[in-house]
Amino acid sequence: MSIGIVSPQIMHFPEPLPLKNGTSLADYMLMYETYGTLNADKSNAVLVCHALNASHHVAGVYADDPDNVGWWDNMVGPGKSLDTDKFFVIGVNNLGSCFGSTGPMHTNPATGKPYGASFPVVTVEDWVNAQARLADQLGIAQFAAVMGGSLGGMQAVAWSMMFPDRLRHCIVIASTPKLSAQNIAFNDVARQAILTDPDYHGGDFYAHGVVPKNGLRVARMVGHITYLSDDDMAEKFGRDLRSGEYQFGFGIDFEIESYLRYQGDKFSTYFDANTYLLITKALDYFDPAKDFGGDLAKAFANTKAQFLLASFKTDWRFSPERSREMVQALVSNKRRVTYAEIDAPHGHDAFLLEDERYMKLLREYYQRVWAEIALEECA
Amino acid sequence: MSIGIVSPQIMHFPEPLPLKNGTSLADYMLMYETYGTLNADKSNAVLVCHALNASHHVAGVYADDPDNVGWWDNMVGPGKSLDTDKFFVIGVNNLGSCFGSTGPMHTNPATGKPYGASFPVVTVEDWVNAQARLADQLGIAQFAAVMGGSLGGMQAVAWSMMFPDRLRHCIVIASTPKLSAQNIAFNDVARQAILTDPDYHGGDFYAHGVVPKNGLRVARMVGHITYLSDDDMAEKFGRDLRSGEYQFGFGIDFEIESYLRYQGDKFSTYFDANTYLLITKALDYFDPAKDFGGDLAKAFANTKAQFLLASFKTDWRFSPERSREMVQALVSNKRRVTYAEIDAPHGHDAFLLEDERYMKLLREYYQRVWAEIALEECA
Repeated sequence: MSIGIVSPQIMHFPEPLPLKNGTSLADYMLMYETYGTLNADKSNAVLVCHALNASHHVAGVYADDPDNVGWWDNMVGPGKSLDTDKFFVIGVNNLGSCFGSTGPMHTNPATGKPYGASFPVVTVEDWVNAQARLADQLGIAQFAAVMGGSLGGMQAVAWSMMFPDRLRHCIVIASTPKLSAQNIAFNDVARQAILTDPDYHGGDFYAHGVVPKNGLRVARMVGHITYLSDDDMAEKFGRDLRSGEYQFGFGIDFEIESYLRYQGDKFSTYFDANTYLLITKALDYFDPAKDFGGDLAKAFANTKAQFLLASFKTDWRFSPERSREMVQALVSNKRRVTYAEIDAPHGHDAFLLEDERYMKLLREYYQRVWAEIALEECA
Repeated sequence: MSIGIVSPQIMHFPEPLPLKNGTSLADYMLMYETYGTLNADKSNAVLVCHALNASHHVAGVYADDPDNVGWWDNMVGPGKSLDTDKFFVIGVNNLGSCFGSTGPMHTNPATGKPYGASFPVVTVEDWVNAQARLADQLGIAQFAAVMGGSLGGMQAVAWSMMFPDRLRHCIVIASTPKLSAQNIAFNDVARQAILTDPDYHGGDFYAHGVVPKNGLRVARMVGHITYLSDDDMAEKFGRDLRSGEYQFGFGIDFEIESYLRYQGDKFSTYFDANTYLLITKALDYFDPAKDFGGDLAKAFANTKAQFLLASFKTDWRFSPERSREMVQALVSNKRRVTYAEIDAPHGHDAFLLEDERYMKLLREYYQRVWAEIALEECA
């Protein structure tokens, strides 16, 4: 059952947020949504962290926009794997994003103009600090779980390291402890497409009344290829021709071209170009082992949470091997860790899609989390 | 030993060339180079077909440009795997390319203006037909071998199917019988980057005195990622930072970014945008099984050559699996086929690089080809 109609909320933070780049962000806002009910001892809260192009809108729909279904609605809701009849779930839009929290299109109080490209390059750790302040305001000292897929998984990992006492469980899906050179390369192609689009105007395109659509479109197309598996693409599109014959021109021949261009076009109408640049940088910069001479085990040494990691066999963006690195680092620290490698055909995107084994895994894990909480309440 | 100084030659073809798209190309020229000496019975000729961004300049250097070394100079030369002391080797620039053969920047005799985007979308089969006419002019009835890597390998395959009596051996390296949806998708990203660059001007950028540099640059960057293996990139660049610290901006942080942007910049100064579009289309369209209901074995049924196929384990653009499909189709036709899967770390690019086992494989194969020729000469 879907959670039905939900409403986003906004919280204002007047205290400056110190950032990893050495500056700070004054006077910011976070857009968030909650589902379910916080219990009396505030022990049933789950924070869901979003990935590149998602938002605080994790589940449900809006009264005035009934087709706008939350990005993890298949996971979060009454009776679902993350059961909102039991848990109080929070989705929060990250700083620098373009869905309501303070970002590049908002006014920089210091200049009275939109931040544009001058919005600070925020990191996963900055986001976690901002999320922690939201938790403070909501009176949540400790989350039952912090959970995320892909870039969201990086945030869950950072939570476990930065605030070891503030989460019982850390749920990390289709993620990685750091991007590879190839991952960074794809991100940089996307950034270069945006940065060199004449309509980008050095990030101040808002003032020019234009959007670097072509750059965003190419950025999304290349990103999208990395989200799908080769096999899945072969199965869904193969070499199917749109009109049955080669066109001998540069329009659309193959269905895969039509699909990707459509995805790119759609994305370019709603996503902010500066946000795309910022979020890919947050991905590139995440590397918790960096401060420990590259030793991931040391980076996990002060964590206290229990961990669930899951990866997907056909994910070539963040392959199972990358999850296993984290599992290894956790095991070497004697952390309690559950790991599942799911044989789903959909590549990186699998973390967002329906898959019986995947949903069952999360359902059973959350039942365990719930049993722990219930036991403590009885005690 | 390098072959030393070489000179390109040009041949004019006044007869129209019928093309697969239903039109024909009138009055075209082919730029080519030859190395070694054609023997008396013209049985020692080897045609080397080039891939996306290469040319007729296979080996040696030019007197006035001593740093411009041929793209397969490590393979072709006196005493090398393809030994020019024995074989007469021909490199030919394909139609639509930008290195001397008739292409989009040349004048369309029908309009008196550069072809631009109106240059016909040529195919692998069209190239092979043009190459066959060159062979006719050079008096070569049958090649000892036709050889190519990647897109060059597709031309060798097409030769074996279109002119079964005109080659003894077909040497196909790091190639595929057709592009996958993912391959096409990457090509289309590259094309969209070029087509949407305002400096492309619908293909008539020559008249505007500009070049769609930004589009070409992004096209090359994304292409280049697919030429390298993930492991090789990790080994060469990893997460190395250019200045040791994160810059918190959109300049260069990582060495891989610096490398790719450099490759993109360089490429955009010398490669023609219309050619890039054309050649990626030739790649997309190649699919000899298409006329046989997708049955590759049937497509190979009328071939007569002996085959050598080689693939590289870390090549994820045209993986070993794609070569094995061709081997299977040849075996089912009872063709004589040698297949090697080389454990080189360099991804698709490995076909251009020095590797002892790879060079030895080709050396020994060509020794066999030579022995056959020598035997016939004695007979």
